[in-house]
Amino acid sequence: MNPEPFLQLDRVIHEKGRLAIMSMLAASPELSFIEMRDALNMTDGNLTTHIRTLQESGYISISKSYQNNRPHTTCSLTPSGKKAFTGYINLLEQIIQQNKPKQ
Amino acid sequence: MNPEPFLQLDRVIHEKGRLAIMSMLAASPELSFIEMRDALNMTDGNLTTHIRTLQESGYISISKSYQNNRPHTTCSLTPSGKKAFTGYINLLEQIIQQNKPKQ
Repeated sequence: MNPEPFLQLDRVIHEKGRLAIMSMLAASPELSFIEMRDALNMTDGNLTTHIRTLQESGYISISKSYQNNRPHTTCSLTPSGKKAFTGYINLLEQIIQQNKPKQ
Repeated sequence: MNPEPFLQLDRVIHEKGRLAIMSMLAASPELSFIEMRDALNMTDGNLTTHIRTLQESGYISISKSYQNNRPHTTCSLTPSGKKAFTGYINLLEQIIQQNKPKQ
């Protein structure tokens, strides 16, 4: 077995919650905090922590504004985040092809 | 997006090191500790910890014997480990299909 694809899996994206967030953002130009929290059934604290980690890695950008006098936070993938996510998904595909159990 | 596949990903298998171990074992009837350690470039301590976690989850069985007067440890997937790994790979496939970024 070639262990390379495993070693290369991006730890920031590999965590289940962040994988879910990156996947949602890969499918939309931008999403609000509320949309993500409700779709993923996460707590505010959990989503905030994941978003901060993704932002610190340069994978998402965060925009804060007001809507109806209430704070409105939206997230979107940066070009670097798109590239990292595509690389991650390609690696997963390699792993699946390489390791599909024989039935 | 359907968050279900993410939520169902088995945390025991999802960790990168354990994913590599499970993949190796899915491809062989059994492997020795040394074979796995060298193929995956892990420390003894790291591999021991992962193997214990997999054993406690009922996913691998461990057999200890002696070869040339030296302890010889081998691991193999249990039926429950095979089932869990197949389920995990099927979920990954769903996630990839569902979330492949548009080029």
